[in-house]
Amino acid sequence: MPENVETSETADAGARPAARPGGRNARVRSQILAATTELVARNGVAGLRYEEIAELAGVNKNSVYRNWPDRTELVSDALLQYAEDSAPLHDTGNLRRDLVNFLIVFSERLSSSIDRAILQATIAAPGNTDLDKAVRAAYDRRLAIARRRFDSAVEKGEIPPVDSYFVTELLSGPVYLYINRRRHPFTREVAEKIVDIVLAGIHATTP
Amino acid sequence: MPENVETSETADAGARPAARPGGRNARVRSQILAATTELVARNGVAGLRYEEIAELAGVNKNSVYRNWPDRTELVSDALLQYAEDSAPLHDTGNLRRDLVNFLIVFSERLSSSIDRAILQATIAAPGNTDLDKAVRAAYDRRLAIARRRFDSAVEKGEIPPVDSYFVTELLSGPVYLYINRRRHPFTREVAEKIVDIVLAGIHATTP
Repeated sequence: MPENVETSETADAGARPAARPGGRNARVRSQILAATTELVARNGVAGLRYEEIAELAGVNKNSVYRNWPDRTELVSDALLQYAEDSAPLHDTGNLRRDLVNFLIVFSERLSSSIDRAILQATIAAPGNTDLDKAVRAAYDRRLAIARRRFDSAVEKGEIPPVDSYFVTELLSGPVYLYINRRRHPFTREVAEKIVDIVLAGIHATTP
Repeated sequence: MPENVETSETADAGARPAARPGGRNARVRSQILAATTELVARNGVAGLRYEEIAELAGVNKNSVYRNWPDRTELVSDALLQYAEDSAPLHDTGNLRRDLVNFLIVFSERLSSSIDRAILQATIAAPGNTDLDKAVRAAYDRRLAIARRRFDSAVEKGEIPPVDSYFVTELLSGPVYLYINRRRHPFTREVAEKIVDIVLAGIHATTP
């Protein structure tokens, strides 16, 4: 769990496979997806072997084949599960605090070795458009969580109506640059400044 | 020249080598750097050969060796020249218009094949820290242009004092995500919304 996140609820995000509901098969699927993500991060997509996935997940090789006859679909699902678990955004009723916490978790995931490795693996294989789609779908899912929080804030009248896709990019874009440039540390203070300026700017520019 | 940039001054950016002052040696150096950037984009850094650079630049191989005995320094200088030519930011006296134009040029460079290829080539060689430094230095140079424009706006009282590094990341971060996600087009309207919200937010949050 990230140190500087205030709400204790985000601790759930760490307990990935066991926390998933749905009995044994759901648990097996979740273990396979986690193992796949780890192996993609470690060896890239080209080197991905079902035997290794099964071994790392502690399941029978047939379970992998039966659930995912298609390898691209397996990678896509694995990245989606990873993305969903990556950036929790809880609705505590305080939009500013929720967004600041979201940006901090987002920044810590972006700087994790698994995220960097996935980025490298996927950029190294730009010809594989299915994988490209999988990565983008995973990012979309991650940001969809932020979008839902925005939509609910608009509904409750906390902020004026906004294009939630646009605002999500506006908030998370600078985080992306801070992490990837490594010129200045991304701190809670920076996250708060981003959220404050963007929220104030939205209020000020809405007629 | 990007279609939707209003000021005609940015046309200068296209006429790279010839526009550089300083006589024959400066012109030769500039041609070598442009050829280096193109070859890095085409083949990556590992495959870079001085013979090919000389041939593409139309200069003698000895000119390349004499000016850049060190290959990493050559790549670094090439990326820096590319970055400087990439994102012109003219001071027309209208901060909003200048920033909108800057974001549009920035977005077009980010989506160019040469930028994408450089990104791939450098991410594929993460162990090469000199190259990594060169890439980051090039980005810094590109953004330093925006920072200077901000500092001058602060001096003239157009905006309250700001951390220009922070604001530059705040403005260019969303552009980066729009281009790399390819989910929605990056238009002049989007650029204007980013600049308007950020400028209004800075005014509103400054005591």
